[in-house]
Amino acid sequence: MIEYEQAGEEVRAVYDDIMQTRQTDWINNFWKALAHDPATLKRTWQSIKEIMAPGTLDVLQKELIYLAVSVSNQCPYCIASHGAAAKRAGMTPEMFGELMAVVGMANETNRLASGYRVEIDERFKSASGF
Amino acid sequence: MIEYEQAGEEVRAVYDDIMQTRQTDWINNFWKALAHDPATLKRTWQSIKEIMAPGTLDVLQKELIYLAVSVSNQCPYCIASHGAAAKRAGMTPEMFGELMAVVGMANETNRLASGYRVEIDERFKSASGF
Amino acid sequence: MIEYEQAGEEVRAVYDDIMQTRQTDWINNFWKALAHDPATLKRTWQSIKEIMAPGTLDVLQKELIYLAVSVSNQCPYCIASHGAAAKRAGMTPEMFGELMAVVGMANETNRLASGYRVEIDERFKSASGF
Amino acid sequence: MIEYEQAGEEVRAVYDDIMQTRQTDWINNFWKALAHDPATLKRTWQSIKEIMAPGTLDVLQKELIYLAVSVSNQCPYCIASHGAAAKRAGMTPEMFGELMAVVGMANETNRLASGYRVEIDERFKSASGF
Amino acid sequence: MIEYEQAGEEVRAVYDDIMQTRQTDWINNFWKALAHDPATLKRTWQSIKEIMAPGTLDVLQKELIYLAVSVSNQCPYCIASHGAAAKRAGMTPEMFGELMAVVGMANETNRLASGYRVEIDERFKSASGF
Amino acid sequence: MIEYEQAGEEVRAVYDDIMQTRQTDWINNFWKALAHDPATLKRTWQSIKEIMAPGTLDVLQKELIYLAVSVSNQCPYCIASHGAAAKRAGMTPEMFGELMAVVGMANETNRLASGYRVEIDERFKSASGF
Repeated sequence: MIEYEQAGEEVRAVYDDIMQTRQTDWINNFWKALAHDPATLKRTWQSIKEIMAPGTLDVLQKELIYLAVSVSNQCPYCIASHGAAAKRAGMTPEMFGELMAVVGMANETNRLASGYRVEIDERFKSASGF
Repeated sequence: MIEYEQAGEEVRAVYDDIMQTRQTDWINNFWKALAHDPATLKRTWQSIKEIMAPGTLDVLQKELIYLAVSVSNQCPYCIASHGAAAKRAGMTPEMFGELMAVVGMANETNRLASGYRVEIDERFKSASGF
Repeated sequence: MIEYEQAGEEVRAVYDDIMQTRQTDWINNFWKALAHDPATLKRTWQSIKEIMAPGTLDVLQKELIYLAVSVSNQCPYCIASHGAAAKRAGMTPEMFGELMAVVGMANETNRLASGYRVEIDERFKSASGF
Repeated sequence: MIEYEQAGEEVRAVYDDIMQTRQTDWINNFWKALAHDPATLKRTWQSIKEIMAPGTLDVLQKELIYLAVSVSNQCPYCIASHGAAAKRAGMTPEMFGELMAVVGMANETNRLASGYRVEIDERFKSASGF
Repeated sequence: MIEYEQAGEEVRAVYDDIMQTRQTDWINNFWKALAHDPATLKRTWQSIKEIMAPGTLDVLQKELIYLAVSVSNQCPYCIASHGAAAKRAGMTPEMFGELMAVVGMANETNRLASGYRVEIDERFKSASGF
Repeated sequence: MIEYEQAGEEVRAVYDDIMQTRQTDWINNFWKALAHDPATLKRTWQSIKEIMAPGTLDVLQKELIYLAVSVSNQCPYCIASHGAAAKRAGMTPEMFGELMAVVGMANETNRLASGYRVEIDERFKSASGF
């Protein structure tokens, strides 16, 4: 992992932007690992910064979605880091419990729908596409 | 698929509850397929009814999470049906676009974290567990 | 897809063995697609033949497991073909319904266990390893 | 994790039912983690109790399917806990070896079928749907 | 889907860059769908353009990896589009057959390693991390 | 895990072939775990030996694909062992960085294509099938 002190200029610029954007004074291991490949570090940070900024969905809603996908994919690091991020954004234990219930149920019904080979209803073909 | 007219009493009771709860007058194919196994139909509906009721997360937030997991799992039926459900609950095209961006990015960084074998930061071990 | 008539000697030998082993007079599309790569066709068939032969698990138990994994992975072709195979091996509609319920629940609890970051119980560390 | 001694009445009732149903005198970590959300604890236990009860599939067959899905999803906790459960239900080392071989092969052929974009055979469309 | 003729200036600029970079005169459906969200269209294209440019891995190697992941994830659109891209970059039928064999085997052994709960060898802990 | 010294004749023959083929003097844990089921050990080794031998893809290309799938599936053991294998075959840190970038992007666009329900372009239907 590349610590701030050993980092080159390009990496330091990303670290500085991460800390400023998040209003923190430390860098978590994910970025320190990516720093071995400065191009990926920079591109990934810029994408996340753009995607996770408040839009028509607020920061909490975005972090809940990020956490839900990470739980569904069973990624231990991402569950830990985005669990912390969601908590910082306002997720309470009750909200986490409800999120987990939805993620569990979605994983169950995804398989029920696929296993029973359910055909898409006519109304859904038109209704859900924007 | 079991239509209302051919359905037995147990299945009809579930269909009636679905239509009343959702304030609609039709049953989508997922339930008609599950109706071949009345025990699973009943249990799945009761679980979904309980889980998707407004709580500390509102209906829109829950539908966004349900849709995000279904997209991540690439389940065509569930993307169509929960896309429609999220839209009914207030999801706009802009919100869908932002949801998709988060789901895509989470799937990318989940693999980056796993592939770089990033260790969980000490702070995340304590901070995110409730 | 490579039909029997166009097939070379090596492919025909596999097709003949498939039909003899399964006591059928036709080849399903999976094998006709693999036949573009005779080495993969041969190796895959020999592995499946060895793995799916009755052992301490009988053919029905093995087909139920094969189908359960295919449903969990949401592979449309495999759900159709191994659904048919399981049916041939004795799976009734009631058994299929119970299998689907277990597959759905396993997918739900797999995410609950991962999302809640449940530590493995001491007893399971020793008890379940053979 | 919520231990029996600290648990409220609702949680204790579930713990008691788990121990009675399974004829054991302890609760594994999965339930102690879920107990943070008593509604999910209760619903999940009731669903599992109903689904895993002997039906047209016996307990061993159901545990083999549960374990197979957990291995396929690569969930460490679930592999450990359902490995132990399957063993209790009668799974021998030989049966576990055969289960693993089927799970591995299913994961291989699921990708072969998808990657070669194999079309579903006409016969499978009718034959496997109940 | 947003066709070139209906596209706004921002979207057209991306379409133009795609066609120039790829030396083609048409836009495939993926981009036309993303164009509903110009920010995601632009970010995704710029990331792909940067990632897929020749580096220490050449274009064919990168397309083989892209295709392998898409097959493993069983994404029909991506298998079709990146199959075509890999072919354009020089993938022969023989190479595709070998790629498929590796993808299938990796999916099999990934589950064998997880299901047997194989511990990481000491030598791999040091040897494979850069 | 079955060490060489405790292994029976059948298992030793596989171990010997592994060491000779790979020109090493040790056996990694994966094979020692599989050795509990000699039939699976032998079949898996013979398949891998055949699949990973140089063909129209060379050993490095095959190891890159194997590693990419293992990262995408988030299998910790396989990432470690095939990371080491790819390194032995010539993968540099720069190549690993580029591989990771492609794997991450493929996982992102796989979900974008599925979530936007992008239809396969006519040209891809014909162009990419061999």
